[in-house]
Amino acid sequence: MASSGSRVVDIHTHMYPPAYVELLESRQTIPLIRRFAGAKDPRYIILPAEAESLEKISQAGAAATTQLPGRPVTTHYSSLQQKIHFMDTHKIDISVISLANPWLDFVAEAEAAETARSVNREFESMCLEHPGRLFFFATLPLSAPAEELLAAIDFVRGLKHCRGVILGTSGLGQGLDDRRLIPVFKALAKNGLMIFLHPHYGLPSEVWGPRATEEYGHVLPLALGFPLETTIAVARMYLAGVFDEVPELKMLLAHSGGTLPFLAGRIESCIVHDGHLVREGKVGPKRRTVWQVLKEQIYLDAVIYSEVGLKAAIDASGVDRLMFGTDHPFFPPLTSDEQGEWESMKWNKAAVEKALGEGSQGTLAVMGGNAIEVLQLKEDA
Amino acid sequence: MASSGSRVVDIHTHMYPPAYVELLESRQTIPLIRRFAGAKDPRYIILPAEAESLEKISQAGAAATTQLPGRPVTTHYSSLQQKIHFMDTHKIDISVISLANPWLDFVAEAEAAETARSVNREFESMCLEHPGRLFFFATLPLSAPAEELLAAIDFVRGLKHCRGVILGTSGLGQGLDDRRLIPVFKALAKNGLMIFLHPHYGLPSEVWGPRATEEYGHVLPLALGFPLETTIAVARMYLAGVFDEVPELKMLLAHSGGTLPFLAGRIESCIVHDGHLVREGKVGPKRRTVWQVLKEQIYLDAVIYSEVGLKAAIDASGVDRLMFGTDHPFFPPLTSDEQGEWESMKWNKAAVEKALGEGSQGTLAVMGGNAIEVLQLKEDA
Repeated sequence: MASSGSRVVDIHTHMYPPAYVELLESRQTIPLIRRFAGAKDPRYIILPAEAESLEKISQAGAAATTQLPGRPVTTHYSSLQQKIHFMDTHKIDISVISLANPWLDFVAEAEAAETARSVNREFESMCLEHPGRLFFFATLPLSAPAEELLAAIDFVRGLKHCRGVILGTSGLGQGLDDRRLIPVFKALAKNGLMIFLHPHYGLPSEVWGPRATEEYGHVLPLALGFPLETTIAVARMYLAGVFDEVPELKMLLAHSGGTLPFLAGRIESCIVHDGHLVREGKVGPKRRTVWQVLKEQIYLDAVIYSEVGLKAAIDASGVDRLMFGTDHPFFPPLTSDEQGEWESMKWNKAAVEKALGEGSQGTLAVMGGNAIEVLQLKEDA
Repeated sequence: MASSGSRVVDIHTHMYPPAYVELLESRQTIPLIRRFAGAKDPRYIILPAEAESLEKISQAGAAATTQLPGRPVTTHYSSLQQKIHFMDTHKIDISVISLANPWLDFVAEAEAAETARSVNREFESMCLEHPGRLFFFATLPLSAPAEELLAAIDFVRGLKHCRGVILGTSGLGQGLDDRRLIPVFKALAKNGLMIFLHPHYGLPSEVWGPRATEEYGHVLPLALGFPLETTIAVARMYLAGVFDEVPELKMLLAHSGGTLPFLAGRIESCIVHDGHLVREGKVGPKRRTVWQVLKEQIYLDAVIYSEVGLKAAIDASGVDRLMFGTDHPFFPPLTSDEQGEWESMKWNKAAVEKALGEGSQGTLAVMGGNAIEVLQLKEDA
């Protein structure tokens, strides 16, 4: 457990650099950014349900609706000055910024490598503007040909402020248990680049039932779909043996592991009671359990908004593997000034202090010390 | 917190009475029970992936495969003597038995009421055979016309050993946030009948990815799909206002709430940050939070196989609302005698003792005291 003083590090915080915003503005299918007459900010449209609303508006004309789909793209998304303001307001010393979902998942094969290179360069130059305060997780051109994808890893490891890569769950289109990803995982591990695993696709919308879209806002897909997506992705990697095959691979899981800390016991039980796995000899004494992988290869952010879940995350991975985050610029305050304090900071910080004690070694570690040590967040590193 | 001595109660334990087995044997689509030449036990086929295997076998002939689909229907499913043997082996004093998934969800409208009545009578007569050791959660004829469904509640409340009803997540076909269920919930609440909410349908199989069926056994749908299904169902009820509209409704959630204790913080955050809900005035100061509902109307079983998740469940609902269970006859031991000790008992009991201390008041409460008090498990009650 590292205590590097009382510095606060935000390891889950996103940026949309200008070139990425332009890319989204040029698109006709989700994800896309669309401007509406009379609306102050353009809208960022990600979810299938939002695309349906957009479709209705296109057919009926914007005047037919009082509510625009998606979320406003405020300066919080793309302004570095705003990011620094957010950090200063919340006494965050260092942010490890990353592109937000869905990254470059949608970019055509021929453009992927160059788009990734330009986005990663923009991230590096943002970090250079604020020495010691910004580091970043790079973005991989997953739709690029295999050799360009490996070259991209080589490129980002040369960027001074890059500490890993942010990765969605789709991989090359078939999930992260795809054997074609093994060379990617090996290259990342070899270069000491952590994977920050982050959800985007959620679950098929029919699981939310007929009332969800009209009545429950985005609560179900965001609160339940996202964490499950992460859990499924990492469970598939575990079952495919990725963690054994690439033992140096280190993964940081968004939202405190989705639901992994809570469900690890049930996963273990389902494994040892699975006739197929037992017959295949996959449940032998040498098997590394989910619990071991949680303590040896997995790190968890502390973006869980309650000490109840946070304690389970700490119990599962260890207090030296949890790292504070805010998820900025998502979930802005709706009933107070968004230049002021955000609940994402308040709730997640309170969770750490309630779980570990205000000012305790554990709290200092989770709030920043762990990230500084694990990700080597020193300007001269 | 109740400590009624050191009696152990299993509140999550299923039975397939003979009439229900016959019903399943007569079916052509899942769920069904099928006998195969040369196999000792018939097979119980529930999951869509298993139905696909069955289809292949039907086409190719049973000899073409070495592995039969589904799970063996051993005497653990339908023999009361075997249930009592399991209880004796594991020092379980009282079991609150229930029909297993998918209950009567598939029964035609015209037959539902009578089938439910006969199943519930069979449960009552099993309880009568072992006074003081067995109580049960009844089964509702959800596909019956509304008045017969309400009459069924009236019927089961008159059965001496009935303490509630086991309910899946489909309700009348559109989930448990269906307003047509409000009279059902009100009737249950008025009669002091607890709902035991139990998953069956999991998640659409595409979420498990292309390798799941062949390589990962049933791990993903059972370990992740089931708990998420429960979480979605109860979150939809919460968002629909069911708990406010029926404040006396009491629900016991299978598998320690699915993932609800871990995700409650994120659900709360997503609610207060949801533009739609805020605009609709649904996030006012009078809103009862998910945390309040967890502590006031929800009970959780302790079927979670680890103290990590169990502690979160206790933190979320309170030690007086957790109740031990085994999920018998599911997850039989695969590498030891199934007449001996089962991991389901060992792991879940160890979780309680690690979380609360061996022999502590809390452990006694969770292992049996709470169930005895909350469900009034007294023969003369």
